[in-house]
Amino acid sequence: MRQLTKLLMLPALALTASSALADEGMWQPNQLPTIAKQLTKAGLKLNPNDLTDLTGFPMGAIVSLGGCTASFVSDQGLVASNHHCVYGSVQYNSTAENNLLKNGFLAKSFDEELPATPGSRIYVTEEITEVTPLVNAGITEGMNGSERYKAIDTNSKTLVAECENDDRYRCSVVNFHGGLEYYLFKQLTIRDVRLVHAPASSIGKYGGDVDNWMWPRHTGDYGFYRAYVGKDGQPADFSKDNVPYKPKHHLKVNKSSVDDGDYIMVLGYPGRTNRYRTAYEVENTFTWTYPNAKAYREEIIDLIHTHSEEGSEARIKYESTLAGLANYAKNYGSMIHSYNKGTFLERKQTLEKKLTQWLQSDKKRQAKYGEALSGLNKLIKIDDQQQARDLILGYMRYNKMLSTATSLHRLAVENEKPNIERERGYQERDLARFEQGMKSVDRRYDETIDKEILIAMLTHYVALPKEERIKSFDKFFGLSKTTAKNFNEKKLRKTLEKMYKKTQLNSQEQRLALMNKPLSDFEKSKDPFIKLAVASFKERKAIEDTSKELAGNIQAYRPKYMEALIAYFNDNNLPVYADANSTLRITYGNVKGYSPQDGLTATPYTTLEGIVAKDTGIAPFDAPKKQLELINNKQYGEYAKKAIGSVPVNYLGTLDITGGNSGSPTLNDKAEFVGLVFDGVYESIIGDWDYDKKLNRSIHVDVRYMLWVMEHVDGATNLIEEMDIVE
Amino acid sequence: MRQLTKLLMLPALALTASSALADEGMWQPNQLPTIAKQLTKAGLKLNPNDLTDLTGFPMGAIVSLGGCTASFVSDQGLVASNHHCVYGSVQYNSTAENNLLKNGFLAKSFDEELPATPGSRIYVTEEITEVTPLVNAGITEGMNGSERYKAIDTNSKTLVAECENDDRYRCSVVNFHGGLEYYLFKQLTIRDVRLVHAPASSIGKYGGDVDNWMWPRHTGDYGFYRAYVGKDGQPADFSKDNVPYKPKHHLKVNKSSVDDGDYIMVLGYPGRTNRYRTAYEVENTFTWTYPNAKAYREEIIDLIHTHSEEGSEARIKYESTLAGLANYAKNYGSMIHSYNKGTFLERKQTLEKKLTQWLQSDKKRQAKYGEALSGLNKLIKIDDQQQARDLILGYMRYNKMLSTATSLHRLAVENEKPNIERERGYQERDLARFEQGMKSVDRRYDETIDKEILIAMLTHYVALPKEERIKSFDKFFGLSKTTAKNFNEKKLRKTLEKMYKKTQLNSQEQRLALMNKPLSDFEKSKDPFIKLAVASFKERKAIEDTSKELAGNIQAYRPKYMEALIAYFNDNNLPVYADANSTLRITYGNVKGYSPQDGLTATPYTTLEGIVAKDTGIAPFDAPKKQLELINNKQYGEYAKKAIGSVPVNYLGTLDITGGNSGSPTLNDKAEFVGLVFDGVYESIIGDWDYDKKLNRSIHVDVRYMLWVMEHVDGATNLIEEMDIVE
Repeated sequence: MRQLTKLLMLPALALTASSALADEGMWQPNQLPTIAKQLTKAGLKLNPNDLTDLTGFPMGAIVSLGGCTASFVSDQGLVASNHHCVYGSVQYNSTAENNLLKNGFLAKSFDEELPATPGSRIYVTEEITEVTPLVNAGITEGMNGSERYKAIDTNSKTLVAECENDDRYRCSVVNFHGGLEYYLFKQLTIRDVRLVHAPASSIGKYGGDVDNWMWPRHTGDYGFYRAYVGKDGQPADFSKDNVPYKPKHHLKVNKSSVDDGDYIMVLGYPGRTNRYRTAYEVENTFTWTYPNAKAYREEIIDLIHTHSEEGSEARIKYESTLAGLANYAKNYGSMIHSYNKGTFLERKQTLEKKLTQWLQSDKKRQAKYGEALSGLNKLIKIDDQQQARDLILGYMRYNKMLSTATSLHRLAVENEKPNIERERGYQERDLARFEQGMKSVDRRYDETIDKEILIAMLTHYVALPKEERIKSFDKFFGLSKTTAKNFNEKKLRKTLEKMYKKTQLNSQEQRLALMNKPLSDFEKSKDPFIKLAVASFKERKAIEDTSKELAGNIQAYRPKYMEALIAYFNDNNLPVYADANSTLRITYGNVKGYSPQDGLTATPYTTLEGIVAKDTGIAPFDAPKKQLELINNKQYGEYAKKAIGSVPVNYLGTLDITGGNSGSPTLNDKAEFVGLVFDGVYESIIGDWDYDKKLNRSIHVDVRYMLWVMEHVDGATNLIEEMDIVE
Repeated sequence: MRQLTKLLMLPALALTASSALADEGMWQPNQLPTIAKQLTKAGLKLNPNDLTDLTGFPMGAIVSLGGCTASFVSDQGLVASNHHCVYGSVQYNSTAENNLLKNGFLAKSFDEELPATPGSRIYVTEEITEVTPLVNAGITEGMNGSERYKAIDTNSKTLVAECENDDRYRCSVVNFHGGLEYYLFKQLTIRDVRLVHAPASSIGKYGGDVDNWMWPRHTGDYGFYRAYVGKDGQPADFSKDNVPYKPKHHLKVNKSSVDDGDYIMVLGYPGRTNRYRTAYEVENTFTWTYPNAKAYREEIIDLIHTHSEEGSEARIKYESTLAGLANYAKNYGSMIHSYNKGTFLERKQTLEKKLTQWLQSDKKRQAKYGEALSGLNKLIKIDDQQQARDLILGYMRYNKMLSTATSLHRLAVENEKPNIERERGYQERDLARFEQGMKSVDRRYDETIDKEILIAMLTHYVALPKEERIKSFDKFFGLSKTTAKNFNEKKLRKTLEKMYKKTQLNSQEQRLALMNKPLSDFEKSKDPFIKLAVASFKERKAIEDTSKELAGNIQAYRPKYMEALIAYFNDNNLPVYADANSTLRITYGNVKGYSPQDGLTATPYTTLEGIVAKDTGIAPFDAPKKQLELINNKQYGEYAKKAIGSVPVNYLGTLDITGGNSGSPTLNDKAEFVGLVFDGVYESIIGDWDYDKKLNRSIHVDVRYMLWVMEHVDGATNLIEEMDIVE
């Protein structure tokens, strides 16, 4: 099918991108020939066309961990990624007696390597095929939203199923430019993943949440996995007899790293950006969604803090939830701040004005695209009418009992259909992950906290206008006549007490058993949370169907709007790249500082001495004593950088990255490994919507720091010897 | 008496200071010839010897406001200083209808000028005379501490009284190098001071407590007074008939200001530094005094916050107290942090070791100075034995009723003696200020808060060991058998309730009346706080006498220690300057940024745009709308600086300053006015003890920003015309 790509490439996308700048842009591999000149001018020493070959060098060395990126750094399947990407596996192998999170872990030989957390996978993208006409097959102008949604959904699922006939692969159909294009991604899936090395958290997570998204930074955010396959070289489940995977390509490690101003690039799997949203969507998100979501997050954080003492069992269960809540509360806070301070909306509005003028200046264009923006906005506004309710229901999912009940019930509903027709997330290919989720409840659930979250969210829920409420929900909780004014929290608490007393969903055995129960069993169930799930299903399904219909309708406008926008950009010689969507991208730029504030400059490197300066002896600023001593004695080994008189720890780049890029190797002009990208600076969080050349900075752990710690602190000389170190 | 200075200058001080560096050092005017070469090398274009002439240019233009520095900037007695130095006068003239603090104030003509807050003075230093032998007259080796203390005290008071025979002058005898030298300062005292101009607090105090001691900074910390004298040109009390004072010298204002790296100097009255304390004193202060003092400050802050709502009358009364408490809590916090992170104590200990070796290497030296350090430390340790109690009693002074009662009672005690024998603070020359203090209670007192402070401090007090307690105090409060364990707060509260109900010290009339009452009236008084003051006086006086005796004993060692240290410095070609003591000093250096943290550089200038970036519309980040508009429209007038593309707001310098330097003019290489120093950066707070060339930075308001705001925001063109503007 590969030839299809070129044949069907829309003229709008045959973009020369002659004005494409370095720094901004998450480029698809197939776009690279169009920006070859820029890449070479920026400093790339390879032939840019080489980067389009997924199975060649260097692309063949880049892998996905699902949510994180990683890369092969030896011919024995050694994989480098961020500490925070292998964190779950370190945690999984930790015990009270042998706390690997605290102490770090190093396998000095292959047989000391530990299995990664269950479900860990290494995905090697082998094929990317454009499938737009196949996904759109059978779609007609006259279809309503639901029909259009269903057609796309079924076509996509069919393509995925066909592709996954070879069970060594995991496949996905991904939408680009809001549905203007679709690509099928085929990824070899390595199922035996083992933990090789991670430094102590006091190195790998140094600075913790305090330094998260901040500069200056001093985090050794790296860790190593190894990919194992069967003796036949094919993916296999864990077995002692498996052998290290031999990748076709791996990255050389350049211990000289890079200097201020040097060319760098990151190959990886950025998660999601929103660079082409409409002005209306921008305004609504920044003035309504983010402020409200931030408030709910902070409320749930406070509530977890109030109902669990630091260090208690309950608190430990919620540490990961807390980290996630706080992470995005901080994220939203930064974006709201940047939005209020900047001119993002103004610029968006100006662009739309110019686009409209450009369309109006040509009758054909006007006829083809004239309604795209207004039609799109109209539909989005319909969707936003229930946004207050939808946000509350969304945060209600932090309540484990209710979300477990609805998931299990839904599984039973979907199991009644043939596999291909089931909802995403409930197909056979999803069941292993589903089971993991059911198992994980035990480690992430506390009854009191769970109850408090539900009460808090129901308190917001009863303030909604009647017409937005879910009748079956109201009936179940006895809230039919309840408003914010007459809300009786005490009464609700009593109801919940009874529910929690009676439910058996807090038992893992029970949850796993329910995965195999027919729908009829659910309908007869006496479990209060399942009763609630059953009673409210019809209404919830109706909401879902309405939402799908709307999505189908939007599908008739968003691609058209994107097509118009791309044509306009093209006509004005402006670069176009698709929003991030967890697929393989390249971003390139330079090592470079910035000015976070008038009167301050962030210099591009931090040094070992900065660790000592930050250290308080208390987490997250509690570097290992051995490390502090080495620094105080200036034992830099061979890793000091002359210009800064010390070993560089982290550095700043101008690269355009986002979540999902975590763990991506940072490459120099010869595509040699010179570090790992692991974060962006606070001022660049809004970059997911609005890239600002002045403020957008990626944060990288310097390969010199990795090697220095590995050699001098952790004695991981076996790994240094295994890698191809150059300079 | 002037000739005495030269004749008696100790050889130790005839220091060439050939190795004196720029930046560090608060130089006495008479030292300047010894550092003439350095000054010229650093960039000074004047003859360094000119700076020694107090009545010549530029020294003659520098004045003290008592606690702040200022300078004459026109031939009509116009005086420039910091906004925070004229703040009291702006507040004094503010009413609910005409809030000058909020709106700012500008007299467009002389007759619109307003009287400064009562007691405001402008001091012009006209003579500095060394009086060491006169102060030490009559002192013999055999004297005990009390006798020595008394001799020095009486000699000093006599010198002051003689000098003040001419009532146009205020005089003081000030100790240098811990009593190794004494100088008599004679200052012309201008008593009719008027407020001419202050920008709105949202400019003059922009950033408020949040930005206090911080960089980046955007504060327009300037304001103007005018000095008035009688028609005869002599100081006079306020009168409509008074005329502007015509200073012999005033500063030209250079509107080009200075650039990165340029020579700058500050002439002013730095308050207090502790650069020559012993290692023991350093350790005790940073590990005991500051942490405990910080905790008491924070406790009182919390307590005021708890017992007064924001914006309430009570809170307004305590705003200034809160600012002072928070200011030094932050100050101590920074110093403790710097101390713990740095090597200050180590270096101090090394210095003492080297000094000891140097002394031991020469028999004569050893005989003369061998016991100085150990003797001094021994005495200081005795003093520190009661430091826990003394600190508690110190913070108990935040209780107004008790401190008012003890002050009034003490005044009656002192009034029984001839004026010359009275304690400092209770002599006739002090009475005007004493009265101001009594009057100010009304504006700074709230019964509930006052009571809570006393309870909090008594709670700490009862935890003291019995032997440190004041028996009469215990008896009065019924605490004789009370310890921390059996402390009954409820009971104490009842006692205090009664005291506050009965006391009349909350009446201004009563307080002022008591200033003229004989001691016998106090002894008969039924006022509970006065009864407490009377009952505890004997014990408190005994503590005071012990302390004086100790001070007298220390007086036999500290000068000797300083003499040894200076000789050692001299021998090693190291610079020596006296600790700051609120007398006229010169410090010089350059405009220069610094690195506050690994990975960050503070650039030397901030710009107008930084104001917009910080602005939230909420105090302290609520710049006037007009100003924000001007900035957004880039209306820089003639004040933009090419290198930064905007008007500079504040800049960083390497100068060695401390509290008391506030309001000092910053001068360029020709002694032209180029701004005002108003703060130091957070990392340099420990500079009062330990100057660090890398981190010590002074913060200045740029003259260009002053002129830009005056011309474009406030329309203070009359003042711009009055000054001699050059470029």
